[in-house]
Amino acid sequence: MSSSLLSQLADALGNGSVEVVDLTQPLSPETPVIELPPIFAPSPGLSMQVISQYNDAGPAWYWNTITLGEHTGTHFDAPIHWITGAQLANNTTDTIPARRFVGPACVIDISDRVAENEDTLLTVEDIQSWEAEHGLIPAGAWLLLRTDWSKRQGRDAFLNAGEDGPHSPGFHPGAVRLLAERDVLGVGVETVGTDAGQAATFDPPFPAHNIMQGSGRFGLASLTNLDRLPPTGAIVIAAPLKLVNGSGSPVRVLALVSR
Amino acid sequence: MSSSLLSQLADALGNGSVEVVDLTQPLSPETPVIELPPIFAPSPGLSMQVISQYNDAGPAWYWNTITLGEHTGTHFDAPIHWITGAQLANNTTDTIPARRFVGPACVIDISDRVAENEDTLLTVEDIQSWEAEHGLIPAGAWLLLRTDWSKRQGRDAFLNAGEDGPHSPGFHPGAVRLLAERDVLGVGVETVGTDAGQAATFDPPFPAHNIMQGSGRFGLASLTNLDRLPPTGAIVIAAPLKLVNGSGSPVRVLALVSR
Repeated sequence: MSSSLLSQLADALGNGSVEVVDLTQPLSPETPVIELPPIFAPSPGLSMQVISQYNDAGPAWYWNTITLGEHTGTHFDAPIHWITGAQLANNTTDTIPARRFVGPACVIDISDRVAENEDTLLTVEDIQSWEAEHGLIPAGAWLLLRTDWSKRQGRDAFLNAGEDGPHSPGFHPGAVRLLAERDVLGVGVETVGTDAGQAATFDPPFPAHNIMQGSGRFGLASLTNLDRLPPTGAIVIAAPLKLVNGSGSPVRVLALVSR
Repeated sequence: MSSSLLSQLADALGNGSVEVVDLTQPLSPETPVIELPPIFAPSPGLSMQVISQYNDAGPAWYWNTITLGEHTGTHFDAPIHWITGAQLANNTTDTIPARRFVGPACVIDISDRVAENEDTLLTVEDIQSWEAEHGLIPAGAWLLLRTDWSKRQGRDAFLNAGEDGPHSPGFHPGAVRLLAERDVLGVGVETVGTDAGQAATFDPPFPAHNIMQGSGRFGLASLTNLDRLPPTGAIVIAAPLKLVNGSGSPVRVLALVSR
């Protein structure tokens, strides 16, 4: 029966009744990276160096060497990324069970409020309101926060840093606690990191990292095309590189969506 | 109906009747990389540098900077990787349509012969014999070549270089031409690259690269766990990083398999 299911899936992918939506931003030297206060070590964006390009260094082949922080562009946060997840089992990119890289998506859209207020946070009431319409967020689902932040053009608009730090949407601590109770796989966002720009001032600071990674859950940041997903019904595939002891990695995130 | 299909898939993933099999080798500084004659530029293996690890450089977080060749460990070859694919449309990791990152797998097992002869090649006759049993390889499928080469422990046994170059299994040129006629997505192997160790001496040289990339198709190298896949029926997910103008990338390859 499940054999027939995968056969139907292959057919549906072939005839387009299941679409593969790319939730990934292009990864280039221009890809913005998170800015930290200068007392902390920065994470480098992407640099690429050509090894050969159909020349003496390699007459028939073209390839590059890449250097980047694990958390550059569209990327995956593993539990070990945060100190609260440092002691958990299976907390690195190479030890997380593969079944956790494929799961259903619940998409909550707060883009209208974000257009009015860049510091908008998802609240417990937002989740309850969404669940009243769509049902409880099931265990093992990604919670994807649609803010339309990915439509901001250029590094400055995307990072949106002021003198008092960055301003970008995210999660209220109570909302993250409720999502942990729901047993989500993790949270995914369109901003440069899973936490709001002002989250250093929250209690706890950086609640999306603190609580999600601290409970063995994941993060996805710098997603795009969330406006092409239904509130429920999509399947997200988000599989980090199998870096040994990796804290995360750049990732190609796909969604399967019914058409 | 396709909505119901994805809902069934979510249930099947949840109850284990569809398993997610990891076809990826661990990626570490010990991961072997292809060795070229010294007149060509080498591609570096992985190096990792800690940015912070719950210390002054980042009190609550751990992360690394990674440097590696695009074609390190389990990796994806895009058409632009080879000169024969240099002028094709959508030939880079950022321009290939996302729907091509998910497709059914046909697995041909030549591991018995490889155990006898490390230079064993898949032939036209092998494909015809497989198709007589399992049906024609459908358009848009991955052809995965099971050799059990991934079970070789250690760099030297895996690369298996002699004074006359490496010895490892691969594809006869005629077999690659037939696979192109079948309109496969590409070929996937357990060895360090898609071509046989001695493929520099073939006509054309490196036929898996020359013909697959030259016809807009892909490669997957350094796969493992192909012995956990059925001959047909699995769905492979192989989505490279969205590197702008990337020739390929390290990749986490997953397979959905009915249990």
